[in-house]
Amino acid sequence: MKKNYLFTPGPTMVPPEVSLAEAQPMIHHRTPQFSQIFYELSEDLKYLFQTKTGEVFTLMSSGTGAMEACVANVLSKGDKALVVISGKFGERWAELCKCFGIETITIDVENGRVVDPSEIEAVLQKTEGIKAVFTTQCETSTGVVHDIQSISPLVKKHGALLVVDSITGIGVHPFFMDEWNIDVAITGSQKGCMMPPGLAFVCVNSSAWNVIEKADLPRYYWDFRKMRKELKNKTTPFTPAVSLVMAMKTAMDMIKKEGIENVWKRHARLAHATREGARALGLELFAGEYSSNVLTAIKAPPGIDVDKIIKRLRDETGVTFTGGQSELKGKIIRIGHMGYVNDFDVIVAIAALEKGLSEAGYLVELGKGLSTVQSILVSKK
Amino acid sequence: MKKNYLFTPGPTMVPPEVSLAEAQPMIHHRTPQFSQIFYELSEDLKYLFQTKTGEVFTLMSSGTGAMEACVANVLSKGDKALVVISGKFGERWAELCKCFGIETITIDVENGRVVDPSEIEAVLQKTEGIKAVFTTQCETSTGVVHDIQSISPLVKKHGALLVVDSITGIGVHPFFMDEWNIDVAITGSQKGCMMPPGLAFVCVNSSAWNVIEKADLPRYYWDFRKMRKELKNKTTPFTPAVSLVMAMKTAMDMIKKEGIENVWKRHARLAHATREGARALGLELFAGEYSSNVLTAIKAPPGIDVDKIIKRLRDETGVTFTGGQSELKGKIIRIGHMGYVNDFDVIVAIAALEKGLSEAGYLVELGKGLSTVQSILVSKK
Repeated sequence: MKKNYLFTPGPTMVPPEVSLAEAQPMIHHRTPQFSQIFYELSEDLKYLFQTKTGEVFTLMSSGTGAMEACVANVLSKGDKALVVISGKFGERWAELCKCFGIETITIDVENGRVVDPSEIEAVLQKTEGIKAVFTTQCETSTGVVHDIQSISPLVKKHGALLVVDSITGIGVHPFFMDEWNIDVAITGSQKGCMMPPGLAFVCVNSSAWNVIEKADLPRYYWDFRKMRKELKNKTTPFTPAVSLVMAMKTAMDMIKKEGIENVWKRHARLAHATREGARALGLELFAGEYSSNVLTAIKAPPGIDVDKIIKRLRDETGVTFTGGQSELKGKIIRIGHMGYVNDFDVIVAIAALEKGLSEAGYLVELGKGLSTVQSILVSKK
Repeated sequence: MKKNYLFTPGPTMVPPEVSLAEAQPMIHHRTPQFSQIFYELSEDLKYLFQTKTGEVFTLMSSGTGAMEACVANVLSKGDKALVVISGKFGERWAELCKCFGIETITIDVENGRVVDPSEIEAVLQKTEGIKAVFTTQCETSTGVVHDIQSISPLVKKHGALLVVDSITGIGVHPFFMDEWNIDVAITGSQKGCMMPPGLAFVCVNSSAWNVIEKADLPRYYWDFRKMRKELKNKTTPFTPAVSLVMAMKTAMDMIKKEGIENVWKRHARLAHATREGARALGLELFAGEYSSNVLTAIKAPPGIDVDKIIKRLRDETGVTFTGGQSELKGKIIRIGHMGYVNDFDVIVAIAALEKGLSEAGYLVELGKGLSTVQSILVSKK
């Protein structure tokens, strides 16, 4: 009886309620019936981003589409952009900016570490006329979480826009669009939102519109101005992914019912338990003190082929972890714990980790990780 | 007991089998399990486009996203493009080309009529260096179908690329990517494919790669070169909409089982019956002899407020037709019959049409449309 346990960096597990909402009979998108759902979802999404002054647009794309949309809406020909790179997704911001012909200055952070906000300030001081700073809240390729709250005032001080990829952050880590003074932020459906992939969400704060209105890079499908205009009509400029929108409404109902603060607390608790479970097995965390609550990246023990463990667990037990990408290939195991994840899921994840390591010949006291996790979860609310 | 009957230009009705496939447990997209499904789907899509030499890419976007992808991949700065406009979707090609700074020559066809292929040839002869011709197989805003087969050799003779928006055509009308010598064609999931919206498909024939490789407009999310590279690995460059991909595989299984020729014949038969049913009620077809099998556009009878009929039918009976857009607003009723539609659906559509017209004060002999449709459907295989 193999069941699927997705401890992946996304797509993550989807609650059956959400899957069934996705399977509802199709409705036409130019009807009051759809508009009402879409309007309510757009309001719920403000809660997700913790904004009152911003608007949230629903894009029919993966998260990368939303990243491209940010670049195309915020920048103009001849602009300079600063990109903080601490892994694969920071790199993607830089690739996108360069693709659109933008002069792109990067801060390259070592894998597994986060940027020091003062480094950002130093570049902004040294380089005149940086239009926007592109950052990543949670870099899932390495497992770190950046301190966006501290970065924000430094960026604003220099008059640049702050754009945050919070694709895996929102719905996992505390995120405050208004309070932190963020101009543009994005997330995806298949992460903390407990949804299948296919939708992305862009929150544009009132502070960003001056720049967006004047920007001159080519944009059509990604045009925030069109989206804003149609959102006022409770609709989208182009055909929305109706079934995913209906599912997302159900997912947001679940998040609202739990309460976003409780969602954040749950993730912090599960992540803490996972990290301690791994440590109890003598394993080292790749991101150390910078570890996010999105996933736990564990260093491969010397001489152990972690990719083989991952493959075997997936094929034989249905528990899916992921390995490292590019230069981190073979060097880490990533255990996701975001979205539709509870205490017993973390127990399963650690049980699978113990099993996998043990079968690969890593000396592990079976049950040691589990008992550590269990103690934390049973005692800690 | 109100049931939903979607006789709309898309999204169209979704078979329960497809909806349930969409509601399957989530799987991770970087697994052999997903790759196998994605590979099989990509092969099935070649059958849908009737190509052996082309490749079909699955895009996470609406149809408009696929249109933007075509423009961004085929054209370069300083290029000239020719766009045939016979309604809203032809206009969209022109808007997209202009948005990317392309010199855009248009042929403007009267609403409800199709382009004369010789007009295209005349422009190609007169204007040097047109890189690509953008066309629409079925223009759903007016209900016409263009003769792509006759257009193609004229475009090729002049060395231009032929790009076809067949978003509502494919899976409804005969379409032969290879035989007709088409370079790039697109379709969407929520039309003939009986799927929810959210996926679009681009077929790129081998003839187009020379141009695509050299094109220099900014492209990242839409980059066909990346898609081609990843398709060889049985995957996508960015996170695919897993649930929609799984649903689409089921939809393609249904299309393959029926046989694409039979799918085309079914649509021709249902469209013919709908047209004759409307005529029997004394109504006039907006697209006359150019009517596509996608939808039947009917002229509003003098003095009858068709938008009010449409609204009332939708709200009271669950039967959804659509009206005209922009300058056609109030002037036509559009009855879609594409995708998951059978004989009895057309009977329901005509019954609703009779009811709506009758209640709006249009003198109609109740049952006259129905008996006409019934005679056609019962006698004609």
